[in-house]
Amino acid sequence: MSDTMKALAFLGAGKVGLVEREIPHAGPGDAIVKTTASLICTSDVHTVAGLLPVPEGRLLGHESVGVVHEVGEGVTSMKVGDRVAVNAVTPDGTCDNCQAGYSSQCGGPLGGYRFTVQKDGNMAEYFHVNDADYNLAPIPEGLADEVAVYACDMLSTGIIGSENANIPIGGTVAIFAQGAVGLSATIGAKLRGAGLVIAVEGIPGRQELSRRFGADVVIDPASGNVAEQIVELTDGGADSTVEALGNQVTFEGALYATRPGGTLSNVGYHGESGPTVTMPLDAWGLGMASKKIVTDLCPGGRLRMERLMRLLANGKVDPTPMTTHRMGIDQVEEGFAMMSEKRDGIVKPLITF
Amino acid sequence: MSDTMKALAFLGAGKVGLVEREIPHAGPGDAIVKTTASLICTSDVHTVAGLLPVPEGRLLGHESVGVVHEVGEGVTSMKVGDRVAVNAVTPDGTCDNCQAGYSSQCGGPLGGYRFTVQKDGNMAEYFHVNDADYNLAPIPEGLADEVAVYACDMLSTGIIGSENANIPIGGTVAIFAQGAVGLSATIGAKLRGAGLVIAVEGIPGRQELSRRFGADVVIDPASGNVAEQIVELTDGGADSTVEALGNQVTFEGALYATRPGGTLSNVGYHGESGPTVTMPLDAWGLGMASKKIVTDLCPGGRLRMERLMRLLANGKVDPTPMTTHRMGIDQVEEGFAMMSEKRDGIVKPLITF
Amino acid sequence: MSDTMKALAFLGAGKVGLVEREIPHAGPGDAIVKTTASLICTSDVHTVAGLLPVPEGRLLGHESVGVVHEVGEGVTSMKVGDRVAVNAVTPDGTCDNCQAGYSSQCGGPLGGYRFTVQKDGNMAEYFHVNDADYNLAPIPEGLADEVAVYACDMLSTGIIGSENANIPIGGTVAIFAQGAVGLSATIGAKLRGAGLVIAVEGIPGRQELSRRFGADVVIDPASGNVAEQIVELTDGGADSTVEALGNQVTFEGALYATRPGGTLSNVGYHGESGPTVTMPLDAWGLGMASKKIVTDLCPGGRLRMERLMRLLANGKVDPTPMTTHRMGIDQVEEGFAMMSEKRDGIVKPLITF
Amino acid sequence: MSDTMKALAFLGAGKVGLVEREIPHAGPGDAIVKTTASLICTSDVHTVAGLLPVPEGRLLGHESVGVVHEVGEGVTSMKVGDRVAVNAVTPDGTCDNCQAGYSSQCGGPLGGYRFTVQKDGNMAEYFHVNDADYNLAPIPEGLADEVAVYACDMLSTGIIGSENANIPIGGTVAIFAQGAVGLSATIGAKLRGAGLVIAVEGIPGRQELSRRFGADVVIDPASGNVAEQIVELTDGGADSTVEALGNQVTFEGALYATRPGGTLSNVGYHGESGPTVTMPLDAWGLGMASKKIVTDLCPGGRLRMERLMRLLANGKVDPTPMTTHRMGIDQVEEGFAMMSEKRDGIVKPLITF
Repeated sequence: MSDTMKALAFLGAGKVGLVEREIPHAGPGDAIVKTTASLICTSDVHTVAGLLPVPEGRLLGHESVGVVHEVGEGVTSMKVGDRVAVNAVTPDGTCDNCQAGYSSQCGGPLGGYRFTVQKDGNMAEYFHVNDADYNLAPIPEGLADEVAVYACDMLSTGIIGSENANIPIGGTVAIFAQGAVGLSATIGAKLRGAGLVIAVEGIPGRQELSRRFGADVVIDPASGNVAEQIVELTDGGADSTVEALGNQVTFEGALYATRPGGTLSNVGYHGESGPTVTMPLDAWGLGMASKKIVTDLCPGGRLRMERLMRLLANGKVDPTPMTTHRMGIDQVEEGFAMMSEKRDGIVKPLITF
Repeated sequence: MSDTMKALAFLGAGKVGLVEREIPHAGPGDAIVKTTASLICTSDVHTVAGLLPVPEGRLLGHESVGVVHEVGEGVTSMKVGDRVAVNAVTPDGTCDNCQAGYSSQCGGPLGGYRFTVQKDGNMAEYFHVNDADYNLAPIPEGLADEVAVYACDMLSTGIIGSENANIPIGGTVAIFAQGAVGLSATIGAKLRGAGLVIAVEGIPGRQELSRRFGADVVIDPASGNVAEQIVELTDGGADSTVEALGNQVTFEGALYATRPGGTLSNVGYHGESGPTVTMPLDAWGLGMASKKIVTDLCPGGRLRMERLMRLLANGKVDPTPMTTHRMGIDQVEEGFAMMSEKRDGIVKPLITF
Repeated sequence: MSDTMKALAFLGAGKVGLVEREIPHAGPGDAIVKTTASLICTSDVHTVAGLLPVPEGRLLGHESVGVVHEVGEGVTSMKVGDRVAVNAVTPDGTCDNCQAGYSSQCGGPLGGYRFTVQKDGNMAEYFHVNDADYNLAPIPEGLADEVAVYACDMLSTGIIGSENANIPIGGTVAIFAQGAVGLSATIGAKLRGAGLVIAVEGIPGRQELSRRFGADVVIDPASGNVAEQIVELTDGGADSTVEALGNQVTFEGALYATRPGGTLSNVGYHGESGPTVTMPLDAWGLGMASKKIVTDLCPGGRLRMERLMRLLANGKVDPTPMTTHRMGIDQVEEGFAMMSEKRDGIVKPLITF
Repeated sequence: MSDTMKALAFLGAGKVGLVEREIPHAGPGDAIVKTTASLICTSDVHTVAGLLPVPEGRLLGHESVGVVHEVGEGVTSMKVGDRVAVNAVTPDGTCDNCQAGYSSQCGGPLGGYRFTVQKDGNMAEYFHVNDADYNLAPIPEGLADEVAVYACDMLSTGIIGSENANIPIGGTVAIFAQGAVGLSATIGAKLRGAGLVIAVEGIPGRQELSRRFGADVVIDPASGNVAEQIVELTDGGADSTVEALGNQVTFEGALYATRPGGTLSNVGYHGESGPTVTMPLDAWGLGMASKKIVTDLCPGGRLRMERLMRLLANGKVDPTPMTTHRMGIDQVEEGFAMMSEKRDGIVKPLITF
């Protein structure tokens, strides 16, 4: 085993590159994981485009699984050699927000999201995990790493989108956009017992995946007023809507399409929307129509990972149709470029090590 | 159309018989439905056995669908000829318990359950529906009556069992007994996104149905300590348990098998248990282990029916494997006898008109 | 008893006047109440100003209590002569939204709000109540009409504002604006066990009332950045905020002042805000800070009224310091003018009959 | 400062005594607190009586506050000299139950309760705190130690009893027994906005305290059937009941007195009840009356303590009328004897150091 590793780094506005780095070491309570599988995330594309400020040289990536390589003093739940998955969000479990039940907001808004934003990411041959006992989750025997890796962000984010949407058993839900997060929200809507799942998506390949994951109806935004179509299909508005893009048009559509008493669950990242999001008063019911707007960031921690991987291990969910491309770490630059340009019908490229 | 109808009546302790009755008429706000399909329910077996006191001559049955035959003054939501389903529980939507959100308890404990208990049941060629605007639900086009009829009690009761159990996405749930209600709870557990569904059942035919509806593991009570096996399988107890039988042994097993912080959801009718149910203190965690025990009666009303029938119409749920027997109303006495004796692998006998 | 009555009517944009009208009669299920006490509401000021379109001649008012004067066919819960209170919102208890638990949205957005908007209001010597069994609540013996009348709208709206805000026991809450609804939200915050209640208000008389009702700190908007002061006082943002004005500035301030994981509860009517409300992305945490925005309209129905009047009858809440003015129905035009111009420190003028 | 300290120890069945011990030291992540004020708890009386098995020599006590004396490696939230309060329950914030939101059940049933049960208690001049960053809470300036100490167990336990009871705003609640936990539940019922608080208690001194803390009605168990009186007073049963004794009679009474759809919240420790608690089927509504039974153990952690102390510091709650006796650590044996014998109207004896 060499002392250096390959990793994907942010090299200044719009630029990424494979770099050579020292393998990190584990402080008290921490762990180092040797990576086996990673997914490239659109969030990193946003970061590289300048939406989230990070220093030059910072490693990218937050969706990786692997094998425990080193554990720091005091770590008791895992040992070297164990197969583990780690969420994109790695809370400490101790701060006020964690104690209040909002561990994604560990230490402050979005504060549980440490990879890339607060420290090096994990699109690397090895990566560092803080608060290892809180964050390392064993990958169940028989569950492949390349499946487990979907629990790190896509499934956790998409499914919380549908959980937060308060979908009644047999209720109606509309999900705006069917990228990997939206598709995962569709999986989540099915898991929560929706009676009618409406997906909004224009790209044919994603429309097809959407149906495969549980959408009953797919509306193409090019077909006219989406919200009106949803109101029509649901006789007055959907019980629940999920905004999985992060855009004024989809947010506004979701707000219109939500029935009185219903919930709009936002998991889209609105960094590209400009400085504000606007709510038309009629869509919002003048602020008195019992509509709820909830938001969240990918829930992390060991327990969340265990539960998501149980769904995978027991065959309740199969996210692998989202894996449109596969490549080794040496091809990651090309994978990142494809992801940036949304080329070749790409949804999620899997990187192997 | 004759002025009389055939119906199944309670004829004194342990006795039932097909009788001739006048077709009922609709008062203000009420409706009369001409029946097309019914299911025989174990609750009626209990009633005939004397567990629930009802006067001799009272008609039995509470799981029926049909066509609107007559509407009373002031009914606006339906018209004669519409295909409709009516839940076993028919609240008025007005009493304090209804306003508090507990419409099954309309007017008092279990008070929403009117068929047979408070007035004639609906195992009859025609039946009366109180508060028709609150209770009549249109059967969606394309949904067969013999499928829709499962929403009247089995699916509503079984699924609320799993809804009330607070199953976390990817969590573990154990369901005690796989009769028609337990099987419906298994359907419900899958609908709520359970990661591991454990069913407890000894009858081979029901074990097979259980797996078909979503159970990952089936434990035979004859195999030894059921609760211990569940604790072992779930590493400390299930997040959620459902008691779908109504029996000291299953209740106690469910309480042991529930992890600290978990929920035991009771939908079993304990009328046969004797005058008390007992909680061992260690199973109950000395009253301090954050275990919750919740109970419910079949939720009724139009909205509940619409949501359940949406699941059926959109192919999310197919309960028909539970229909083990089919017969005309003229054979209903024989069907009732088979149900009482649990003969011939019977789960639900469908009565057609 | 004469066949006509005095009532306050909308007489075209910006104009109101006392008019003579026929006393209404009760249809099936309805009731007529002879009024004893009413309050003038800012909502009516908005309506008269043209924010809500109503036909000329429509009677105003929705906060009135009195004595049952006539009951329609089928009404069973009350009889002529009973003292009763009726909420501003009078749902039917039957529609899908009612069955879903959102009775304020009866039949559609804000649809439970019938007085003035859908039919004549109740600033009149007699008024009509739909669905009387659902909506008439007995005034407890010993509770004065002029106290009970606060349950009709102010307490129901203000308190739901604080209920919806999910205030943790001992948590922090900031309430934006201390008009009658905001003051009632302050009462509600105390009732929910807030540990620190921060009120935002500039008018000295209202600041004083606010402290009297339970505010620990009052911030004057003239003192600088309100949200920053709240973030400072609460070490990172309030657990809960209540928007009780309906204005871009207060909404935005509330959104900034809400901590990650916290809830902004809107009860302000945004009809004056213009066609949109805008959320700055940093205040909204990019749509990912687990901030919830909930909205509601005054909850109605008999049970709600019974509970609120129990608080009043048992001395848990005394709203009467809000009654800044009293007058007979003959002076109601002057009262309305004072309310429109916010003259003479007016909060709520009580009208007696 | 000497190297030894005085402490109260369990000296075998039924015996306690003041002993001399070495002052403990802080390992990584831990802290040592120098005690300033403690309360004697009935739980310790139970332990000494043999209900909870602990080794001879184990120190007693779990309600203490003081000043940080030593911090272990890695502790960042506090420094030596800070005034701090520590809950009776000290979770690690990391285990599955903590991550699931049930930190009182840290590591297993009742597992967060470490003092006395898993390690030495804190009725001692110095005491050890595990996971200090999770558990040490600063005492607000101006809040006296002898008030703050009520947050350690009494208020946290009693108030969670009322929080878990789902008391509707303006709803009815009955609290069974008015010892220190029951009195704190009464405080909690008021904090949650109950409209009618019924307390059940026979001891005159406690009846008086109960009224002082917010009870509207006090029922003496000697007056006849308590549950029937509650059903009568609440027109069908209380919305919520709290069992604060841990006894078959009170539990059964609470179950009868809970209305359909209501919640029984248990915070009584049932160790004295014998091996089981029994539910009469009619009280339990045959397992179908939508009655919920919830249980809990004192919630711990820093955030809980901060919120409770905010209530104390801002004058929302004053528990000090419960302090019926005061003494120095040298008199603690006598205090313990008085507590065991419920002598001299004792509720809580405060020990000063």
